[in-house]
Amino acid sequence: MRSASPPLDVLIVVQKADLYWLSGTVQECHLLVPAEGDPRLLVRKVLERAEEDSPLEDVKPMKSLRELESHVREVAGAPPWRIAMELDVLPVNAFRSYEKRFDATVEWSDASPLLTRLRGVKSDWEIERIRSSGAVHAELFARVPEILARSSSTFDLQTTLDKIACDLGHCGLIRMRGLDVECATGLVVSGREGAMPSHSMFPIGGRGTHAWAPTGGTRSPIERDVPIAMDYLVCREAYYADCTRMAVLGRFPPEAERIFAAIRETIRACEAMLRPGIAPSAIYERATELARELGIGDGFMGPPGFAVRFVGHGIGLEVNETPVLAPGFDEPIVAGNVFAVEPKFTHPTLGVIGLENTYVVRESGAELLTPASEEPYIANGG
Amino acid sequence: MRSASPPLDVLIVVQKADLYWLSGTVQECHLLVPAEGDPRLLVRKVLERAEEDSPLEDVKPMKSLRELESHVREVAGAPPWRIAMELDVLPVNAFRSYEKRFDATVEWSDASPLLTRLRGVKSDWEIERIRSSGAVHAELFARVPEILARSSSTFDLQTTLDKIACDLGHCGLIRMRGLDVECATGLVVSGREGAMPSHSMFPIGGRGTHAWAPTGGTRSPIERDVPIAMDYLVCREAYYADCTRMAVLGRFPPEAERIFAAIRETIRACEAMLRPGIAPSAIYERATELARELGIGDGFMGPPGFAVRFVGHGIGLEVNETPVLAPGFDEPIVAGNVFAVEPKFTHPTLGVIGLENTYVVRESGAELLTPASEEPYIANGG
Repeated sequence: MRSASPPLDVLIVVQKADLYWLSGTVQECHLLVPAEGDPRLLVRKVLERAEEDSPLEDVKPMKSLRELESHVREVAGAPPWRIAMELDVLPVNAFRSYEKRFDATVEWSDASPLLTRLRGVKSDWEIERIRSSGAVHAELFARVPEILARSSSTFDLQTTLDKIACDLGHCGLIRMRGLDVECATGLVVSGREGAMPSHSMFPIGGRGTHAWAPTGGTRSPIERDVPIAMDYLVCREAYYADCTRMAVLGRFPPEAERIFAAIRETIRACEAMLRPGIAPSAIYERATELARELGIGDGFMGPPGFAVRFVGHGIGLEVNETPVLAPGFDEPIVAGNVFAVEPKFTHPTLGVIGLENTYVVRESGAELLTPASEEPYIANGG
Repeated sequence: MRSASPPLDVLIVVQKADLYWLSGTVQECHLLVPAEGDPRLLVRKVLERAEEDSPLEDVKPMKSLRELESHVREVAGAPPWRIAMELDVLPVNAFRSYEKRFDATVEWSDASPLLTRLRGVKSDWEIERIRSSGAVHAELFARVPEILARSSSTFDLQTTLDKIACDLGHCGLIRMRGLDVECATGLVVSGREGAMPSHSMFPIGGRGTHAWAPTGGTRSPIERDVPIAMDYLVCREAYYADCTRMAVLGRFPPEAERIFAAIRETIRACEAMLRPGIAPSAIYERATELARELGIGDGFMGPPGFAVRFVGHGIGLEVNETPVLAPGFDEPIVAGNVFAVEPKFTHPTLGVIGLENTYVVRESGAELLTPASEEPYIANGG
């Protein structure tokens, strides 16, 4: 933010993930970050908790938006001001009420490109928190054979794993950026119903339990010898790790074995390319090309006609961070970028077959943060 | 929507709850509702599922926003157009991208006052769905004594009840209107940590498990003879019921008994006032006055200094609907309004003591939709 000629005078941050990243709290706050000098955290409700959560020194109560302009004056000096807010998520009505609160001349701009870009490079402190979430995945999936044997449906397995994830340290809360961008802790899908495409931006959908909740497991009985995909988010201390593993009641049919081998080869290829200096888009191109070469092109990243155009995404305080391993993301990867890499194939009757790991990019290459065994988790096999 | 001189030419609906209410689907869609004639549902991704979900007849694919203007022309005739969108939730950047898509002259307005007002009056079909969710609460809370006896913490009890709610028919998904307005299926709080105020708009907070997830239960052991409040949302078929009950490991101390009796008297008084023609604000005023008379004024609806200014809220497809039993809601209640009424008291060491029921207002008065026993659920009592 500091430069000879700052493009902004002050950032006003209100969205939970950005707020946590810059202040350590998700209490109802406005965080003012001036181009020069210290940030000021203005707390609408529980001052004590914000003070307990945040290492910032300038923490003050602010009960009404009427006080906002004078705080901006105190941290940023005399107007006119160039103020940025999170216009990618801030609703129109809320933004207009901010506009009306200022008597001074303000030039408004969008803070989200700056914030998402800065947040895309993780510190070691952040990486250790993602690793701590990824450690939960290993314990969670190790429990699958025992649980699967007594699960009545994919929804039952899904919600049992949700509960166990919480027992193992998951906070239970998922934060994703955007309007109506909803995401559960886990999606467990299998077979024909599991092959239904996501209504949203995911390479995995599933029928879900109702038109109102149209993704993930169903209440139908689990079929023997049909692959089950388990896509789980875990968040132990604010930071998410994302990991997908396979399971089966019985055994994988040969066709599923063949597809799974191709998926493994694809994730290994992505892993090898995850290095500083390479364009995210190049990894996407190579992964889709390899999938075609391996005979899993038609159904890669979603059922034919519904494939999503990425093979991995940034992750941290939110599930859908940047950079994305997708066309258009041509700026080279840097050390500290964290990616969930998720090659997935949808077969019309076998359902989704895939893998997903979360990696941090180091100078030397990809470091795995989700060490759960990649072997399918098998119950009542034989 | 039909009148001699409609204030709008077309509504464009994108938000999930509004979309479901008007079309029956939450697939990625734009729903065009013209002032005259039939609505048109434009599906971005899974056309087949939208067709399966929706009874609307005019359902078409729309892959790009570039096609939107010509669809508006087809349903609403020649421009200029007065178009309303959900500006209470639509982010600024998204709205600007809609503005840019139109070459014709458009006068934009906010659809949310109209939509929330219309959605506030429920049909019998909707009421039966809320009742079906409320029936789950009765089964869920009946399981509490057995589960509480083996719960290691309030967070353990909370997440066990989440899982059982799903087994009993809850879809697992919570939809609440607004940016960062987050809500879990259940909050289970007790004692001093349970008395911590909500960072948000709730009369119940709790410490939660982390600064990132700062509401609800904690991982500390459950204390004997300290009241436990359990605030649960259940959604069986898109519609939510909201219900709060008390539990205890051991027995309620006399002070808790006294407070609970006052809470019961308060909810009975609210219930008796829930009739067509009365102002929601009058119910709020009477409830707070009664709470003061009964000696639970200081701590009613939140810890002193953090009380929320309502005693109940509309509920249906979203948890935070209108009308609200709060100051400023002076327009009389009508038959078909549904309210979650939740008198709650926060005691600094005993935590939250309260009750919550969901009611539909009939011509004859309030009809209960959450028949779970109001008696505290006791484990290892004696």
